Amino acid sequence: MSTEPEPERASPLADLSRACLHTITTKPWSIERAAESYARAGIRGITVWRDALVDRNVERTGDMLRSHGLSVVSLCRGGFFPYKDDKAQKDAWDDNRRAIDQAAALGAPLVVLVCGALPDQSLERSRRHIREGIEAVLPYAEARGIRLAIEPLHPMYADSRSAINTLSQANDMAIALGSASVGVAVDVYHVWWDPSLEFEIQRAGRAGKLFAFHVCDWKSPTRDLLLDRGLPGEGCIDIRRIRRSMEKAGFDGWIEVEIFSEAYWASDQAQFLDRVTQSYLDHV
Amino acid sequence: MSTEPEPERASPLADLSRACLHTITTKPWSIERAAESYARAGIRGITVWRDALVDRNVERTGDMLRSHGLSVVSLCRGGFFPYKDDKAQKDAWDDNRRAIDQAAALGAPLVVLVCGALPDQSLERSRRHIREGIEAVLPYAEARGIRLAIEPLHPMYADSRSAINTLSQANDMAIALGSASVGVAVDVYHVWWDPSLEFEIQRAGRAGKLFAFHVCDWKSPTRDLLLDRGLPGEGCIDIRRIRRSMEKAGFDGWIEVEIFSEAYWASDQAQFLDRVTQSYLDHV
Repeated sequence: MSTEPEPERASPLADLSRACLHTITTKPWSIERAAESYARAGIRGITVWRDALVDRNVERTGDMLRSHGLSVVSLCRGGFFPYKDDKAQKDAWDDNRRAIDQAAALGAPLVVLVCGALPDQSLERSRRHIREGIEAVLPYAEARGIRLAIEPLHPMYADSRSAINTLSQANDMAIALGSASVGVAVDVYHVWWDPSLEFEIQRAGRAGKLFAFHVCDWKSPTRDLLLDRGLPGEGCIDIRRIRRSMEKAGFDGWIEVEIFSEAYWASDQAQFLDRVTQSYLDHV
Repeated sequence: MSTEPEPERASPLADLSRACLHTITTKPWSIERAAESYARAGIRGITVWRDALVDRNVERTGDMLRSHGLSVVSLCRGGFFPYKDDKAQKDAWDDNRRAIDQAAALGAPLVVLVCGALPDQSLERSRRHIREGIEAVLPYAEARGIRLAIEPLHPMYADSRSAINTLSQANDMAIALGSASVGVAVDVYHVWWDPSLEFEIQRAGRAGKLFAFHVCDWKSPTRDLLLDRGLPGEGCIDIRRIRRSMEKAGFDGWIEVEIFSEAYWASDQAQFLDRVTQSYLDHV
């Protein structure tokens, strides 16, 4: 009986030097508390979710992050381009320009795009709106030196969060847009199941489009479509295999831990942060 | 600004002559109660889930269904081929042969395969086990005149229910197996998001592989990964567009309503059945 060859896997990471945390991972914490705690834990990168910036001066918040030795890796998130009418289109484009302004003020070089979808229109129409929207805001981003990463979302989010559901689609769009400022974000949670994943990671690498790499795990069973992500090692995703693909494709950037979990948010965040760093070293 | 062309959609169905119900749709009912109720509602086809056959003589149950004027469309389900050891492999193959025996005894021409996956082994290994398993039981099915339909399952089930997650993969496997007795089951819930859906339906049709067509809807929001399917029309799936693709590809068989829903199972099943038939006429 034949056996498939053992997949290539990346070697364990020796330290936290490439580790980045998304503020949403420790959602109960203010960004100030998060910054202090991440830095104390030895983490050097932070991706900022926009809700963490509410009621704050964005430039000073960027300075605060850097004062803790943190690099600001990206801003999450722009996108949600599909619209029902002209006003909604204008609002979406304006909001994306605001996200670009925030990234520039914060000192984040990248805005991650969760592209959007509307359940009452076709995926093709939503994809047209996404492409139009990125084209519309791209000059604004380019002028400010901000890059945009199209993040394909798992097909279970095709109704209302993204009509871009595979890395193949994200690559197609990023490449078609023809700007060095547009690439893709690879989040293992969204793409791990895809039989063309390895091929598409290499394709993105050759095209210079691998802008971001997000990790967490798919728990089995998963109790909630949105808020039950696992720590690396808690689920079925072969993260080191995907990291090996990323690195083979030339990616040597930040490895960003992004976990949405009602259960973890309800737990002690300092203890949770210890588990995040340990799971990163043990399983990413 | 360009607009995508309006997709082609099938015309409304004039009656219930092609309607089939899965017994799981009205799970609280016994198969006897289901048969009587479906027939009274004007439904002519039934797909039997194996749990509905527990403690029953299968041949007499088939006769009972036919006595109500019902055609037995298929048996759900075989599959779950991935294994950890030799015993589990043997158990899986034996269980699939039992499913084939049950289908033959019931008078069902088709067994639907939910192919299986194991969270602690690679998808490639699970796919090898699936292919081996189908090859192992295929002669047994052929000898009894039973066909097998590989049902691709939504990628959100790739951890533990199926390593076959797109119609492309199901077609590849069905075609590679090289038997007229192996085809695919297209369930709109699992495939609606797929950008290659139309292409793959036509490919399956050309290869003579379109063995089954299941309908329900994807609710937005969906509250549960498994048990929150909607009635046709309650969600975001353009069912008539997919039916048009199926029919263009030559499919003129049963249209099977398969809904898993804790909420509907907790409701009055007779009223629910009325809603099923109405939603079928209004939205399928």
